[in-house]
Amino acid sequence: MSQPSVSAKPINKLALIGTGLIGGSFALALKKQGLVGQVVGLARSPESARRALDAGVVDQAEESFHKVIADADLVFIATPVKAMDAVFAQLADCLPEQALITDGGSVKQAVFDRACAHLKQFQLERFVPGHPIAGKERSGPEAADADLFVDHRVILTPVAECTSAAALSRIHELWVGVGAEVEQLTLAEHDHLLAATSHLPHAAAFAMVGALLRMEERHDVFRYAAGGFRDFTRIASSDPTMWADIFMDNRAELQSLIARYQQELTVLNRYGRL
Amino acid sequence: MSQPSVSAKPINKLALIGTGLIGGSFALALKKQGLVGQVVGLARSPESARRALDAGVVDQAEESFHKVIADADLVFIATPVKAMDAVFAQLADCLPEQALITDGGSVKQAVFDRACAHLKQFQLERFVPGHPIAGKERSGPEAADADLFVDHRVILTPVAECTSAAALSRIHELWVGVGAEVEQLTLAEHDHLLAATSHLPHAAAFAMVGALLRMEERHDVFRYAAGGFRDFTRIASSDPTMWADIFMDNRAELQSLIARYQQELTVLNRYGRL
Repeated sequence: MSQPSVSAKPINKLALIGTGLIGGSFALALKKQGLVGQVVGLARSPESARRALDAGVVDQAEESFHKVIADADLVFIATPVKAMDAVFAQLADCLPEQALITDGGSVKQAVFDRACAHLKQFQLERFVPGHPIAGKERSGPEAADADLFVDHRVILTPVAECTSAAALSRIHELWVGVGAEVEQLTLAEHDHLLAATSHLPHAAAFAMVGALLRMEERHDVFRYAAGGFRDFTRIASSDPTMWADIFMDNRAELQSLIARYQQELTVLNRYGRL
Repeated sequence: MSQPSVSAKPINKLALIGTGLIGGSFALALKKQGLVGQVVGLARSPESARRALDAGVVDQAEESFHKVIADADLVFIATPVKAMDAVFAQLADCLPEQALITDGGSVKQAVFDRACAHLKQFQLERFVPGHPIAGKERSGPEAADADLFVDHRVILTPVAECTSAAALSRIHELWVGVGAEVEQLTLAEHDHLLAATSHLPHAAAFAMVGALLRMEERHDVFRYAAGGFRDFTRIASSDPTMWADIFMDNRAELQSLIARYQQELTVLNRYGRL
């Protein structure tokens, strides 16, 4: 296990938009490393406020977007990717002058496009798109883990003509501070690579479980599930709505990969072997 | 963990045709439960004899098929399914009168057909086709494990008009004796069910790794492999030749499932969601 760096300068107030597994783990990790003073999370209901507080991922939960953002020096967006559109729209109105923005979305071009649609140029310069390659099948603040990112890759996708070098360097330093291995890719490189290594496997797992659920003997099928199949059902137990949004956002890349995958399956089906 | 039954009558000599993971684990499990006197394994080379002896899965290794079979009261066939054709051909000539036969093959109709092609009627009555639903990605005698079958399902597929009730009951008792949960299915039921729960997932994993190996950026793809994809590569690290034989043997069942799977993928590809 790599030793988290202790040289990063702490932030005063983290505004957490999305207090689930990824957002919650980021908050817990910053706290554990002494890298954050206060964490204020957005909670759309008393129930979600209570869960975030009980899990210890936020010090304070607010229903008001403006209260969450006020005086923050970092905004971390860890909502499903489609919901980021509304988040950027609201941020454009109330982002404090000193604040940086980063996110944890599984697609990057679509998220950056949403940011462009709403943020003003000087705000966009302070947005560093990112994607921690870490997860669990479990979700919600209860699943958050201060060590989730230790020795895991975090991909940052700064946009050359736009992202400020100072903002990039600061976000980079914070991720290193919580033990992650940070790499930089372009938006397109990220989406191309993740389509192959993450989006296609999830699509394949959902499609397989879907195919078997439509068998008449599905009770037996799931009862006899052996090793190989259990891995598929585990992958497919991830939130289908969240993944459907990711598939839509990265559909150009995913479609060409699914087509390639289907060719392989056709060959296997025709000749009985690969 | 269920308590292995201790009421099974021990066998005197087990003839092991195939001393890898499944055959080796069966021998170790019988030994651990005091259910076998002597295990003699077929070894086609001094190297494979040494490995089987070093792993402790056989007491004696022989190059001669006749020496392995002589005086055995149980023959366990744990070779790849295609190789069973030659095994049955040899067994027909030298099976001791009192001996029972069972196997661990992943397809059952094709294995039974091979037995029918070679064994005489009175020998065929003493053959109980079986399939322990247990495995690892590792193979060979070194991977053998006396507890591999504990609390795992073993499917026996006796053939109503053929398999002797006494033979079935004896093989059933031995599997229970090593801690397995024994169930009975017909040959067709087995092949139908396993096509869905095991053969399709393996085919899907091999096809996916195949598709990604043909990408130009494959180095990056495997370097960035995240959770979902790692499960696929693990499944696809199973022996491809062994699996290609299984796919061929069960191709009627597998083809209709792959077709159904491709329909799901097509829907996902067209509409971006399931």
